[in-house]
Amino acid sequence: MKDISQELSVLRDEIDDIDSELVKLLAKRRQVTSKVGALKSTVGMPIYAPEREAALLKMRRTQAEQEGINPDVIEDVLRRLMRDSYSSQDESGYRCVNPNCKEVIVVGGQGQLGAIFVDLFKRSEYTVHVIEKDDWDYSEAILAKASVVIVAVPIRLTAMIIQRLNSLPDDCILADVTSIKESPLYEMMRAHNGPVVGLHPMFGPDVSGLIKQTIITCEGRGAAQYQWLLEQFKVWGATIYPVSAYEHDRAMAMVQVMRHFSTIAYGYHLMTEGADLQQLVDMSSPIYRLELIMVGRLFAQDPVLYSDIIFANSDNVAMMKRFAYRFLELLEDVEMGDKEAFVAMFNQVSEWFGDYADIFLAESKTMLLKANEIK
Amino acid sequence: MKDISQELSVLRDEIDDIDSELVKLLAKRRQVTSKVGALKSTVGMPIYAPEREAALLKMRRTQAEQEGINPDVIEDVLRRLMRDSYSSQDESGYRCVNPNCKEVIVVGGQGQLGAIFVDLFKRSEYTVHVIEKDDWDYSEAILAKASVVIVAVPIRLTAMIIQRLNSLPDDCILADVTSIKESPLYEMMRAHNGPVVGLHPMFGPDVSGLIKQTIITCEGRGAAQYQWLLEQFKVWGATIYPVSAYEHDRAMAMVQVMRHFSTIAYGYHLMTEGADLQQLVDMSSPIYRLELIMVGRLFAQDPVLYSDIIFANSDNVAMMKRFAYRFLELLEDVEMGDKEAFVAMFNQVSEWFGDYADIFLAESKTMLLKANEIK
Repeated sequence: MKDISQELSVLRDEIDDIDSELVKLLAKRRQVTSKVGALKSTVGMPIYAPEREAALLKMRRTQAEQEGINPDVIEDVLRRLMRDSYSSQDESGYRCVNPNCKEVIVVGGQGQLGAIFVDLFKRSEYTVHVIEKDDWDYSEAILAKASVVIVAVPIRLTAMIIQRLNSLPDDCILADVTSIKESPLYEMMRAHNGPVVGLHPMFGPDVSGLIKQTIITCEGRGAAQYQWLLEQFKVWGATIYPVSAYEHDRAMAMVQVMRHFSTIAYGYHLMTEGADLQQLVDMSSPIYRLELIMVGRLFAQDPVLYSDIIFANSDNVAMMKRFAYRFLELLEDVEMGDKEAFVAMFNQVSEWFGDYADIFLAESKTMLLKANEIK
Repeated sequence: MKDISQELSVLRDEIDDIDSELVKLLAKRRQVTSKVGALKSTVGMPIYAPEREAALLKMRRTQAEQEGINPDVIEDVLRRLMRDSYSSQDESGYRCVNPNCKEVIVVGGQGQLGAIFVDLFKRSEYTVHVIEKDDWDYSEAILAKASVVIVAVPIRLTAMIIQRLNSLPDDCILADVTSIKESPLYEMMRAHNGPVVGLHPMFGPDVSGLIKQTIITCEGRGAAQYQWLLEQFKVWGATIYPVSAYEHDRAMAMVQVMRHFSTIAYGYHLMTEGADLQQLVDMSSPIYRLELIMVGRLFAQDPVLYSDIIFANSDNVAMMKRFAYRFLELLEDVEMGDKEAFVAMFNQVSEWFGDYADIFLAESKTMLLKANEIK
């Protein structure tokens, strides 16, 4: 046994040496990628270069196979390094798409989402002003010089704030970043005669940069005039997805509103049933922990944020009621022991999901393996 | 611009050289960790050594800070490498905790979950027999020599199969791996006079090894006699969580059954509402894609698997009805515009989640950053 533990200790020292080399190599890599970022920012090239990324991964996967190691491991490692290098390249600043732009005004720019835009505009060398609730008395002069005004206030205040923005310069772009689109767009069109665009940034305040994030755009008027703004978002790494406000709100009700609401209802249910949370956590393997995480995470956040989204559109009530009735309808199959009906419904939904069912299953497997690495 | 693209190309070549070194270094690391695995397996040391893992990570985090790179990056990379090295060490086989054990029988050992146990027992040098549905006529002789019988058949067949196992040797351990525990345990206690233990492996067939996975155990009788079996599970890397069958079933109804059912109901709802799945996917940023993944993944799987779990315990119907009524009750707040009541409920649940809300939020952030790396 003595020999074994000596042998093990020799091997562990070898691993430590390799890992130490690894850290040095990654530090070196980081230096080079920072240079790439600095270089790109001088000419305004986009940081995220999908073809280069794909080519880089392919080369290393091939090499990994030749060396007899799992190519997935090397791909995962490189993706992690690229994520880090994007955020370092971010620090170098961005190309300014429209140097003629005078002032960018972010109303509510101290809020979580507003602050992200303020920061990105500043790092792209725009002059940015923030208007918060106490600043209205002094804001007239600032607004008179605005080239862009972005409304980034809580949903419940959005309509009221937009109504105040009724004397902007005619060539000023008016936009909002609310998670509903029909009613703010309606208000913006009424308040302003110039270019108008509704935006829904599909990410939370946790993002580090906009690479691979989506911004939904709903056209108001003057698309040609606000086109440069969307180009600026692309320079930041975002994908632009244009859709009508009606379709947006309908889709969001199905995804965002419905999921938030039913997750909150599930948390309330767990509490009311007197579930033993400590025991549930202890019993959980990674997949169930992930389920609990997705529920519990909501309750660490601001209830007003969620209730604003849920209460903003009363059309959602009818849709969610239909969910509850369908839930009870399916439960009846269970109560009656009608497994056949249940399986038939399941198969119908499977068919509706089509190829996505398999794609999502594959992605979830990757995801769960990653979940396994947490702690 | 010519100069810039030349400069960029030089830097990219530098990155490629570093990445090529990286692949070689990881291949070297993998060789050493394989040796560790082989060494450990000769003496039956556990592969997963939490203290060594923690010490290794701490050393490299410190070094990363000294080198001026993000310690989280190096930790994530090392965790990915360790996950890979566990699975390579797995291949070396495991220590056999009970060399006196005669035959291990896995009824349903060709099923997905059964096969995992068959494989692990074999790699720990046990003699393993599989009984599938056509083998009953010839199985009497095999069962007469059994030291362990594990029932790994679909839930709906479990009771019937256990009833057939009524003439096992008195010192044979009888166990099942069904995801409900009260009724199989009851059947096992009736069929067999020797040691009995109910098991619920808290993982799906996708796992690569049992490291960091949980197996729930429900005592039937003869704990001292089946203790070695639990030790064997620990050698495979599993965590053992003992709980009463009643508590197990109650907790699982709240987590597994309820989540499966409501996810299925949500998929059915999306279909029935005529949602545009392609559009939902296109609009989704990583977090919403994750939500869709967790729904769609179910529908790529066997409906019988899910319906068995859902139909197995009719007590769940009442609990799930209570969920639907609570859902409708909360929806009434929305319909009446009673935001205050909704926020008060939310805060109450937040309090109930306690520290876990913040812990889960932090974990979900890590998780979402990882989700960002998919694709």
